[in-house]
Amino acid sequence: MKKSMYNVIENYMFECMNDSAHDPEHIFRVLYLSLSISSKRTEKINYNVLIASCLLHDIGREEQFKNHKICHAEIGGTMANEFLVKNGWKKEDANHVNKCISSHRFRGNNVPETIEAKILFDADKLDVVGNLGIARTLMYKGTVGNNLYEVKNGKICFGNNNEDEETFLKEYNFKLKNLYNKFYTEEAMEMAKNQKEYAQMFYEKLVEQIVDIYKTKEIINEYITK
Amino acid sequence: MKKSMYNVIENYMFECMNDSAHDPEHIFRVLYLSLSISSKRTEKINYNVLIASCLLHDIGREEQFKNHKICHAEIGGTMANEFLVKNGWKKEDANHVNKCISSHRFRGNNVPETIEAKILFDADKLDVVGNLGIARTLMYKGTVGNNLYEVKNGKICFGNNNEDEETFLKEYNFKLKNLYNKFYTEEAMEMAKNQKEYAQMFYEKLVEQIVDIYKTKEIINEYITK
Repeated sequence: MKKSMYNVIENYMFECMNDSAHDPEHIFRVLYLSLSISSKRTEKINYNVLIASCLLHDIGREEQFKNHKICHAEIGGTMANEFLVKNGWKKEDANHVNKCISSHRFRGNNVPETIEAKILFDADKLDVVGNLGIARTLMYKGTVGNNLYEVKNGKICFGNNNEDEETFLKEYNFKLKNLYNKFYTEEAMEMAKNQKEYAQMFYEKLVEQIVDIYKTKEIINEYITK
Repeated sequence: MKKSMYNVIENYMFECMNDSAHDPEHIFRVLYLSLSISSKRTEKINYNVLIASCLLHDIGREEQFKNHKICHAEIGGTMANEFLVKNGWKKEDANHVNKCISSHRFRGNNVPETIEAKILFDADKLDVVGNLGIARTLMYKGTVGNNLYEVKNGKICFGNNNEDEETFLKEYNFKLKNLYNKFYTEEAMEMAKNQKEYAQMFYEKLVEQIVDIYKTKEIINEYITK
């Protein structure tokens, strides 16, 4: 890819990125992680498609913030497609970027099919494993106003039920802890494996610390009279 | 304290608490931690003052969000004072609550003087040690739109300079890692000590993971032409 084209795409990305968990550094990490995975692969990879897909994969976030029914991956793919065609890309390549982006989401309906799509998916997921994943998820929870955990009928909820509030503890149990065998490339699987124990230890010690505090809850009854 | 008065104060607190890092569960944890410290102390403690101070210590947060020059501890103290006098409290006790709240802030100018003020300060700081402190700080950074770290001239900043952006890495190095010997009671110091290594390990592994990703940064140059 020519440097001038890279800059045009990068600038469009800068315009679109806003929240703390998806700042431009997330995009660059996904790009570097993608290239790191690619460098270990033997098949032919279309690097123009891969680089553009990495840079533009989260440009639909703002639309999803405004309307939660919109999937940022699907709308982001369409936005990228239009943007690239407008900037002189061949329809076929722009459409391939569209497909990569629309299938990068953990919760999405579309499955990555090409090697470029699989690498983007894996790189994006690698940015949510280990302590980095813990950190980004917590920041995101703060951004959208979710809480660390929910207390229901005096008990701490771990988010095992669908109707529980969208807390960090729920997100850990629904998504974060289950990521480690959900990669398409063995290279990403290997990179993720090394981070698993740190995220798990963070979660376990966090829960232990919270539960310990609530153990002294009953003392209050000594000082409250009818 | 009578149950009816407790409820009146608690309801006022519920009205005032909003952000994810300072949701009502933070208030309850501070209350339970305060009572846990108190239960180990030998001096006479005014529990009415302590309980009201815990429940109301963060009611000034919203004013600080609206105007960063306002200190939530100072305005919160004044708000609590007015609220308690209006609800039949003796001026002396309401003023004591005011003093406890206005001196509970790590960055504040006021120093806790009475045992009730010291216990509130320590309990509030105990809620920001260990992994719970890491989690709450990350959520807060997301809430106020700060980033995980800053990259300046291609290098990751650890926030050692005042002019660096207000990132999570900076907050860890400025506040979180330095909390552990800043307690007024030895009971809190002891409780905090047990959590220190988990927070430290989280931070170290997080930085290691981030730094590792940037190591593959140069691969991009193989695919970008002039």
